[in-house]
Amino acid sequence: MQWNIVKERLDSLLESGKKNELRGALRMLNRVDIAQYLSELDTDKMLRVFRILPGEISSEVFSYMDDEQREKLISSIGDHEISALIDDMFIDDAVDFLEEMPDALVKRVLENVSPDTRKLINRFLSYPENSAGSIMTIEFCSIPMEYTVVQAMGEIKRTGLDKETINTEYVVDDGGRLVGTLPLRRLISADDSAAVKDIMDSNPITVGTLDDREAVAETVRRYDLLAVPVTDKERRVVGIVTADDIMDVMQAEATEDIEKMSALTPSDDAYIKTGVFTLVKNRLPWLVLMLVLSIFSGLIISHYEGMITGMAAIGVALTACIPMIMDTCGNCGQQASTLVIRGLATGEIRPTDAFKVLWKETRVALLVAVVLGIVCFCIQRFIFTRALIVSLSISLSMIFAVIFAKIVGGLLPLGAKALKLDPALTASPLITTISDTCSLVILFVLASMILL
Amino acid sequence: MQWNIVKERLDSLLESGKKNELRGALRMLNRVDIAQYLSELDTDKMLRVFRILPGEISSEVFSYMDDEQREKLISSIGDHEISALIDDMFIDDAVDFLEEMPDALVKRVLENVSPDTRKLINRFLSYPENSAGSIMTIEFCSIPMEYTVVQAMGEIKRTGLDKETINTEYVVDDGGRLVGTLPLRRLISADDSAAVKDIMDSNPITVGTLDDREAVAETVRRYDLLAVPVTDKERRVVGIVTADDIMDVMQAEATEDIEKMSALTPSDDAYIKTGVFTLVKNRLPWLVLMLVLSIFSGLIISHYEGMITGMAAIGVALTACIPMIMDTCGNCGQQASTLVIRGLATGEIRPTDAFKVLWKETRVALLVAVVLGIVCFCIQRFIFTRALIVSLSISLSMIFAVIFAKIVGGLLPLGAKALKLDPALTASPLITTISDTCSLVILFVLASMILL
Repeated sequence: MQWNIVKERLDSLLESGKKNELRGALRMLNRVDIAQYLSELDTDKMLRVFRILPGEISSEVFSYMDDEQREKLISSIGDHEISALIDDMFIDDAVDFLEEMPDALVKRVLENVSPDTRKLINRFLSYPENSAGSIMTIEFCSIPMEYTVVQAMGEIKRTGLDKETINTEYVVDDGGRLVGTLPLRRLISADDSAAVKDIMDSNPITVGTLDDREAVAETVRRYDLLAVPVTDKERRVVGIVTADDIMDVMQAEATEDIEKMSALTPSDDAYIKTGVFTLVKNRLPWLVLMLVLSIFSGLIISHYEGMITGMAAIGVALTACIPMIMDTCGNCGQQASTLVIRGLATGEIRPTDAFKVLWKETRVALLVAVVLGIVCFCIQRFIFTRALIVSLSISLSMIFAVIFAKIVGGLLPLGAKALKLDPALTASPLITTISDTCSLVILFVLASMILL
Repeated sequence: MQWNIVKERLDSLLESGKKNELRGALRMLNRVDIAQYLSELDTDKMLRVFRILPGEISSEVFSYMDDEQREKLISSIGDHEISALIDDMFIDDAVDFLEEMPDALVKRVLENVSPDTRKLINRFLSYPENSAGSIMTIEFCSIPMEYTVVQAMGEIKRTGLDKETINTEYVVDDGGRLVGTLPLRRLISADDSAAVKDIMDSNPITVGTLDDREAVAETVRRYDLLAVPVTDKERRVVGIVTADDIMDVMQAEATEDIEKMSALTPSDDAYIKTGVFTLVKNRLPWLVLMLVLSIFSGLIISHYEGMITGMAAIGVALTACIPMIMDTCGNCGQQASTLVIRGLATGEIRPTDAFKVLWKETRVALLVAVVLGIVCFCIQRFIFTRALIVSLSISLSMIFAVIFAKIVGGLLPLGAKALKLDPALTASPLITTISDTCSLVILFVLASMILL
């Protein structure tokens, strides 16, 4: 059914005040879609619909709502309702929510949840932002290694319903240290009397509580896992990170890289919901920095002032080709740096590959530069009808500048990585500023050598 | 253990020819890491190690190797070995592999697998590239809806070991049509005599065989799924797409977007392994196109030739600020277009949001432009010591050009989307070329109005 039809039917049930019918209709929807519907209502209606929701799904719907709405909701409901709502949520979802809320609201929530939940939430809030600890869930199944298959199945039946995933069981020793993993499908097909430790996979892939979420995502993706156990310093399992959370991490990290590559301060907030001042704050410092850097190009041109105003035809020819040579070199440098930055981000290029990159970019640059030089010569000679020697000196500058831009574009991200800076920061805007300055130097130095 | 130590030990076992010890050592490694080790060996050694691998893991290791190595391997082993290898693979992995191989090799493989496998592979190869059908797996558990819990558990025990995931069971009617999904954890905790159809979730989220992989990834991510069922036109389940494959899709799609945003023809191949000519082919057409487009900026400057060479001080001032104004506007446009392109890609911005984007970018542009105009004025007046009226007219041009660049940058991706083009193509290089031309027009028109 089309979303606008779904919405219309729900709207009309809401308008007519048929609570029970509305509750029935909502039962037919996925929780994500209910949250979507709530996000399209004003605060009053949103509250009314939320209170109609069947109790067992309201916590889950709540975890899919956006922060702004959740803040409004929590501010409008009573202490008792807060307690029921938060106690029913998965701890990691509750923590995700609280991390984005103002302090007063966090305090009110923590005062109204059960002591156990409060203790857990506080422990999670103490993990560094974007660490494995901060995104893990504690709802996983651990099984003592001395259990038999039938004991393990009993344990899963008893506790599995509350777990986020039981696809893999985590086998632990007396001290709670992880010794292996056991896929549920193998457990189900095994003999009842078999020992868990004999059928488990030893050497499980793990991550540490303090590992960065990007590294966790890379591990999960590399080993094709649906969940990865998170262990503390003593190798005790304290949680797992599941693939659905990893997908959100991958999306956020890709967005962050793309934003940095366009000289934007990365932000987790959605564009449409971000205020104008925040957008300005994320953009302006970089723009001012690069505006100031472009003083150098101005100085170079001013330095060759005699050539520009003294020799009319040459002056105009050189001035008129500045945008052409700057844009082309900027684009060339950006192409090279983008490929290397992305290769570093996905782990396909390593910092030690510098010579491979240098050798490859040099050959690509030579080929590309010659073709662009020829096109540039034709444009100067036949479209702008410049003198032969002027066209030649401009296209020769183009060739040198393109080679320079490609090589610098390929190596700069590797240099940033070696200096422990984020390679994404060396993308287009920085490369463009550097290659602009250098291509102008090449243009004017060559022109003054050939034409004067 | 550090990877270089692991590698050294394996190398020394390989050198000394201790086959059984090497096999034992390999058993201790994850299959992904064995594939990694093989990728670092030359063809001869790779073949020797591959043949030593315990039979039950060689197919899985094979599915993690890179295409170049797999081609070499298949070309060097006998027909019987091919048959054992491919028949043991998950069908979707086998198809992924064959899609990248030359025709002659595909033919040889298909001649040597079992008739059932051949039929399945051929069916998969007929799905369009990047469709749900081409990335799905057929190893999933389906359960007739009239089964009881105990019957369902029996079915899973009998067939589950061969399935890629049994976390969710897919409940079907007589005609094989999907009627619901059933999480294994609920099945395990349910009464033996309960009917599957009473405890399943109806209204499952599904995708179609022909849906684009990007849309499939978005569905899985949005609904926090670990797998999504793929149905044909009659709503029969023909496969599932699991979260581990979705993560690869997300990575590939993000790379593709980033490459398009830098005017690169997207490529699935790794940078280090891509040949120089392919790299040139992916870059050159865009560079030539934009070089040709930059003829316009040249024409504009040539048009104002009298101003540049006729009035020495003004001519140099205007020429010297060309890079500054071009770079700044390019960066401004890129920031706006990047945010909108990424918002469209993640589904956060919809094409109907054009007015919201216009309104937001206009306000951001006004604020940013005023600040940049003031900085620009100070640079012209105090660093380059230009005349007051010249500095004023340059910074006024900067203000108008920045506002123009931000608004065009924000709207162009939405326009591309409305025309069913890929918004990523309107990123930095195109925006830069457009904003360059327009900022030069603004600069010279304003200057001639104020200064002449």
